[in-house]
Amino acid sequence: MASGRIFNFSAGPSMLPVEILEQAQADIINWDGTGMSVMEMSHRSKPFESIHKKCIQDLRDLLNIPPNFKVLLMQGGGSTQFACVPLNLLKDKETANYLTTGAWSTKAIEEARKYCRAHEVATSKSTNFTTIPDPSTWNVDPNGAYFHYCANETIHGVEFTLTQEMLDRIGEVPIVADMSSNFLSKPIDFSKHAVVYAGAQKNAGPAGVTFVIAREDMLGHAKNITPTMLDWKIQADNDSMYNTPPCYAIYICGLYFDYMKRHGGIEAVQELDRQKAAILYDLFDSSNGFYTNPVNPQYRSKMNVPFLIKGGNVDLEKKFLAEAEAVGLSTLAGHRSVGGLRASIYNGMPLEGVRRLADFMTEFKTKHEAE
Amino acid sequence: MASGRIFNFSAGPSMLPVEILEQAQADIINWDGTGMSVMEMSHRSKPFESIHKKCIQDLRDLLNIPPNFKVLLMQGGGSTQFACVPLNLLKDKETANYLTTGAWSTKAIEEARKYCRAHEVATSKSTNFTTIPDPSTWNVDPNGAYFHYCANETIHGVEFTLTQEMLDRIGEVPIVADMSSNFLSKPIDFSKHAVVYAGAQKNAGPAGVTFVIAREDMLGHAKNITPTMLDWKIQADNDSMYNTPPCYAIYICGLYFDYMKRHGGIEAVQELDRQKAAILYDLFDSSNGFYTNPVNPQYRSKMNVPFLIKGGNVDLEKKFLAEAEAVGLSTLAGHRSVGGLRASIYNGMPLEGVRRLADFMTEFKTKHEAE
Repeated sequence: MASGRIFNFSAGPSMLPVEILEQAQADIINWDGTGMSVMEMSHRSKPFESIHKKCIQDLRDLLNIPPNFKVLLMQGGGSTQFACVPLNLLKDKETANYLTTGAWSTKAIEEARKYCRAHEVATSKSTNFTTIPDPSTWNVDPNGAYFHYCANETIHGVEFTLTQEMLDRIGEVPIVADMSSNFLSKPIDFSKHAVVYAGAQKNAGPAGVTFVIAREDMLGHAKNITPTMLDWKIQADNDSMYNTPPCYAIYICGLYFDYMKRHGGIEAVQELDRQKAAILYDLFDSSNGFYTNPVNPQYRSKMNVPFLIKGGNVDLEKKFLAEAEAVGLSTLAGHRSVGGLRASIYNGMPLEGVRRLADFMTEFKTKHEAE
Repeated sequence: MASGRIFNFSAGPSMLPVEILEQAQADIINWDGTGMSVMEMSHRSKPFESIHKKCIQDLRDLLNIPPNFKVLLMQGGGSTQFACVPLNLLKDKETANYLTTGAWSTKAIEEARKYCRAHEVATSKSTNFTTIPDPSTWNVDPNGAYFHYCANETIHGVEFTLTQEMLDRIGEVPIVADMSSNFLSKPIDFSKHAVVYAGAQKNAGPAGVTFVIAREDMLGHAKNITPTMLDWKIQADNDSMYNTPPCYAIYICGLYFDYMKRHGGIEAVQELDRQKAAILYDLFDSSNGFYTNPVNPQYRSKMNVPFLIKGGNVDLEKKFLAEAEAVGLSTLAGHRSVGGLRASIYNGMPLEGVRRLADFMTEFKTKHEAE
């Protein structure tokens, strides 16, 4: 680790590889001999156009995005897309399908209710969102304009990939995925998706950019009440430069994509993420109940790892947070809505950080097990 | 100027004081001993909360914003606010007033037509937007939900402040101003405005943040079709952190506000901007028609200075751009929709840059006058 740097387990914004920050530091006053910071460049200038184009191409390369999908760089995060999805996809339909698996998919269906009869396919609310509803119970309306799901619930730590059984339940309805918090952690099967969207601030860069990857036939159907800036087709037709984009955030995302390409691509990321998650879950499972994760093991998130100490001992949680902070392991509190603890271990978290956390947790357990 | 830096006359994004970039450079890997970059911090963390709070307070101090106005930090630029204005302010009214003075106010009224009968109070289109319509001709609908104007037209170089005659025409209708391209260049009279909005990327920081300053009674009236993220009241109630804000862009804006406060505040900025604009307009007016600015002198912009060479000689324009670029005077082409040349001289452009441009222009004139 660079001098004075800590391991930051924030659920987002989150750690970036220090190599990227060092590159940004070197370039910040004068990018590539242009005499300007990227922050100062006209978005219509040749230097920024090259940055923008390379960012998108590298993302296409990393995720092997098919040519019939457009990549849009938008603003406003996943929450803005909660409105964009119905506004752009409902067409003349009156209903859309939503699977509810945690806090974020709940927000998505609530937003959709402004624009349509949002049909809840299934919900795992009765389990406190610790699992994915059994696909055999999914009740998909085949007349719905689309099927929306959240691939990883940041707060509840539930993650899943569409299985054949799930796909059979969904049928012919176009599938829309909120991948905000596991985007770029593994390959995406675009043959199964019509639209994928994600904020950048977990695995892809700083907050302020939202990626929308949409199949071409999903564009051009926006309702007439759609704000121009939220119309995917208009963004696509203008190469995501209908107005001034968040240039600097795009530049940092571009550095990240370039970094990933140079470090083994999405497969290397996936393997590293698997290793990091296994360290923590294995530690829980061998802790004799000192550390517990409430999520159905089948759907445990590799990105956000919530856990309790002795089933939810608040005093020990406070000690844990204070002692961890003191040794440079930061931002381990659970989301305020659910409490407990949470380690978010996105792409920018080095293996070393997770090992250090695991060592700390083992020591903490030894010290407090008998209390 | 720092080594290798150029003078960049872009209409936005635009130059930042190098002192700010140097500060950002020093902090980028480890902000204030936190062990994190600002890009990596949780937006709910104490360090970022302090950055966010100071940014807003410094803006309040600079513009002397009254306590009954809320300051919102949003995303999506002025173009997103073109939709937010009617969505948040129409209430049950069916019409709103728009003054058309150039490309941006034209876009604003077009967007409003999605949501209401947008009433054009007056337009200067017949003059190619080189003046402000005579206030005696303004036809304001007193039943309109609001009156919208653009305080500075970036492309056409037309700028104005509301006069008493204009205010008399507007009457009791709440006034909304798009100040995207002259925000923070002079004081704002909040007694005359209900809402002011502006993108950051001209005078306030990098692209990716939009400031909305709204009187409290303008909040809480959003139409039910308003995307949650575009609802000013929801943003106000959540201190502009309904979801993850564009943290790094906010941080850079904060550095800029702090810089302005330390350098004499808004009055010093205004005086410097006056001097910079005077250098160029005086040069045009004493150039015997070699350089001309098409705008009514009363409404010449102090931010964006469009000009022609010999009434629009395209060959000389090309030579001008190439020769200027070669001596580090960059991005002087006019907007693609109007052609000609344009020098944007926002707050970040030092006096030295304008003097260098003026010297270059004087030499260029001497060289090419006789052609």
